[in-house]
Amino acid sequence: MTASTKPTAKSGGKKRHVENHSASNSLTIRLRILDEPGMFGKVTTFIGSMNVDVGAVDGFRLVDGFVERDITVYVASTKQGTELVAALGKIDGVSVVHTSDPIMRMHLGGKIEIALRRPINTREDLSLAYTPSVAIPCMEIHADPSKAYNLTMKGNTILIVSDGSRVLALGNIGAKAALPVMEGKAMLFKRFGNVNAVPIVLESQDPDSIIRTIKDIAPGFGGINLEDIASPGCWKVERVLKEQLDIPVFHDDQHGTAVVVLAGTINAAKIVKKQLRNLRVVVSGVGAAGMACCRLLIAAGVKHLVGFNKDGAIYRGREGMNAEEQWLALNSNPKNVKVTMRQALKGADMFLGLSVKGVIDAVDLKVMRRDPIVFALANPEAEVDPEEAAEYARIVATGSSQYPNQINNALVFPGIFRGALDCRVPNITEEMKMEAARALAAVIPPQSLRDDFIIPSIFEEKVHLAVAAAVARVAHQTGTARRVLRKS
Amino acid sequence: MTASTKPTAKSGGKKRHVENHSASNSLTIRLRILDEPGMFGKVTTFIGSMNVDVGAVDGFRLVDGFVERDITVYVASTKQGTELVAALGKIDGVSVVHTSDPIMRMHLGGKIEIALRRPINTREDLSLAYTPSVAIPCMEIHADPSKAYNLTMKGNTILIVSDGSRVLALGNIGAKAALPVMEGKAMLFKRFGNVNAVPIVLESQDPDSIIRTIKDIAPGFGGINLEDIASPGCWKVERVLKEQLDIPVFHDDQHGTAVVVLAGTINAAKIVKKQLRNLRVVVSGVGAAGMACCRLLIAAGVKHLVGFNKDGAIYRGREGMNAEEQWLALNSNPKNVKVTMRQALKGADMFLGLSVKGVIDAVDLKVMRRDPIVFALANPEAEVDPEEAAEYARIVATGSSQYPNQINNALVFPGIFRGALDCRVPNITEEMKMEAARALAAVIPPQSLRDDFIIPSIFEEKVHLAVAAAVARVAHQTGTARRVLRKS
Repeated sequence: MTASTKPTAKSGGKKRHVENHSASNSLTIRLRILDEPGMFGKVTTFIGSMNVDVGAVDGFRLVDGFVERDITVYVASTKQGTELVAALGKIDGVSVVHTSDPIMRMHLGGKIEIALRRPINTREDLSLAYTPSVAIPCMEIHADPSKAYNLTMKGNTILIVSDGSRVLALGNIGAKAALPVMEGKAMLFKRFGNVNAVPIVLESQDPDSIIRTIKDIAPGFGGINLEDIASPGCWKVERVLKEQLDIPVFHDDQHGTAVVVLAGTINAAKIVKKQLRNLRVVVSGVGAAGMACCRLLIAAGVKHLVGFNKDGAIYRGREGMNAEEQWLALNSNPKNVKVTMRQALKGADMFLGLSVKGVIDAVDLKVMRRDPIVFALANPEAEVDPEEAAEYARIVATGSSQYPNQINNALVFPGIFRGALDCRVPNITEEMKMEAARALAAVIPPQSLRDDFIIPSIFEEKVHLAVAAAVARVAHQTGTARRVLRKS
Repeated sequence: MTASTKPTAKSGGKKRHVENHSASNSLTIRLRILDEPGMFGKVTTFIGSMNVDVGAVDGFRLVDGFVERDITVYVASTKQGTELVAALGKIDGVSVVHTSDPIMRMHLGGKIEIALRRPINTREDLSLAYTPSVAIPCMEIHADPSKAYNLTMKGNTILIVSDGSRVLALGNIGAKAALPVMEGKAMLFKRFGNVNAVPIVLESQDPDSIIRTIKDIAPGFGGINLEDIASPGCWKVERVLKEQLDIPVFHDDQHGTAVVVLAGTINAAKIVKKQLRNLRVVVSGVGAAGMACCRLLIAAGVKHLVGFNKDGAIYRGREGMNAEEQWLALNSNPKNVKVTMRQALKGADMFLGLSVKGVIDAVDLKVMRRDPIVFALANPEAEVDPEEAAEYARIVATGSSQYPNQINNALVFPGIFRGALDCRVPNITEEMKMEAARALAAVIPPQSLRDDFIIPSIFEEKVHLAVAAAVARVAHQTGTARRVLRKS
């Protein structure tokens, strides 16, 4: 084909980047090439001259004197790929029709689909699934609406709803742009919890409108997972829907995060031999996720917690706080300190960041008590560089998979909804979240806990089973289960 | 096990009933039986004494001195099954926990689910599908919202929305009870059109509320199939959504029916060698489906059509007509006749019923012109008994699969949306429906047409391909296609 070098996995230094992932370095380029002898060889030779490997050549289509071909190449970085594509387009008689890399290929055409749980191959199948026999389950449900759980998708299907107002670290990108995340989430629900999740992205970002729409579309679903809705709107949406719907409503950005943070905190505290009730925790960021973490940590026994928003500490008597901050002021910060965050770190055991990069410097951690715990969860870049933080802290956790101890909601949301659907609970309670966190923490046996292993892998099946079982256990103990799970 | 006879397929006379379908004659009964020697034998002997075959015995669970077992039997009819279950429950020491027949088993746990289009087996898969790589398609769509068609489920996913206000022949049974039909529909969309369809049943039945909700949830979908919404509300819902959304909105009860009726009419007219423009058609019922049939027949060239509602003929100058009826009065009934339906049948070529049983008697058809065509589509029972009608009419079609010539929407809705999604049309036009009908009619070659074969089978793959191709062809010819299909 053409002389070429092996693809080299260039590293951008200590920190790894998306573009250097090995799965991300193939790129398929559709070229339209003048249909003349030697032209195709010219193209491949040029690619080789740029130190890029040709992996495969597919497709052949004649269009008005041109040939279209798909050339798959291996590039060392997104940058090299972009340069190659630009350079190819400048060759006389060559134009680039389109390009496709592994990221695009993962998302192309959508990541989920509808599948049939029963075949429709015969007239008999059709008669049973649709008219005339379908009238029978319809009338059974009409007589007893709770039968929708047994006779329809409702029993194992939830909605994932977002208004796109706060997506990942991308901010308010709106409905359509949020959809790839919601579909990804639906994949995880299915893969790890066997929960069918239908992504719905909303045109409107007004909380009252969101509430109204979700109530209107809820009858066919067994639960609602709110996703990537900005605070303070998300609080109202969640509160009102929890009051008015008889199915669980769960804002994963808040509670999924909180459950994993509590699990990590439990294991980190075990390692450093400290009790939650004595742990001094400084929390940077009391938005949707931060506030939920504070609530769950406090419920789990943490007393010495001080939250900070961009204007400083949350304390009793401070002006201009929203309802959530007022709750926090009353239920944390027992000494009512009004110091800066850097000052508050003095003597603290744990820094929990759910804010933005740069709110502290690594060196600020130096004043913490022995064996500092740092959860720097801002995305895409942590509050403090995790590798620099490790110079001062004993245990470091982040929101990124590129470091050990990733705090990842996907560890819990599939199991939480699995347990909730299995027991048909009307809501997911604080106690369920707490027990889910304890169950997640307990997946790692005490003797296996390490500074860089406080959170198990998402691919460990036990994780999701343990979380689901914890939710089901609480449901039964507290009498909120509307279906009793039979042990067979 | 026990002495028994073979199951006999009893027939209820000439007309076949749901309960006699061969797939419908197995029944699983969970019995709780006193755990004493001889009790189980007593039960099976009793079943045999009722002339019922035991097919299988499954399960074994001890509960407080009782044994639970699942006994599958073959019964000749639903009635026999009901009698058996009642009789079993009267045996001392035996109680029926629950029963499950093939209809229930088809619907149990829902008929559809979410499936992954790509595997999530490695950390790499996770990084590509979800964070951090998912940010890339998100930002591509944020920059160019039309890319949602390529990079998300939108390009091949539609909503099936119902408020449950007019479900099958069951009437206003509400959201949850409508869900089995919507799921069945989603199965057919997938099976015959490879279209992903998400069923949404709405709490509200107010047209303005329905419009508002659908607009709010539409961004992630490539089309809207309205379903089982009563008229006149359905007309407003469809009209406003068509105006305000840039994706196709299609009320299948109206237009799916109309397309199949036109296809059947085209083939029936061919058989009796009559032209559409000369065909005298009497239409009973001008609700959602009836009105759409009238519109499409008129668009296809039918001139001599008279519609009837329960108060009589639709004619110019009649009082108290809704907007649709006023349109019909202006565009049909050229002689402005005001006679009764029975009188109008005199000299008519075709009776089209989309109303209720009993509006005419078979003998009323006697006064029609040579080779009468009768489409009696009321469900579950036709306007006139099809077998009695056949004594007077040459061609008889119904809405039921139990007779030849079933007018079944499922022949067209999968293909219509397949074509619409492939070309990303903003709406499904009258011309597309007309061409879809012609394509459906043409699936049967002229030499194969018979009085009892004017409509092809839904299981003929050609049906769905032909309908989709017809829609795509019109989209390209009229310039409404937003994506050009490549011939490869």
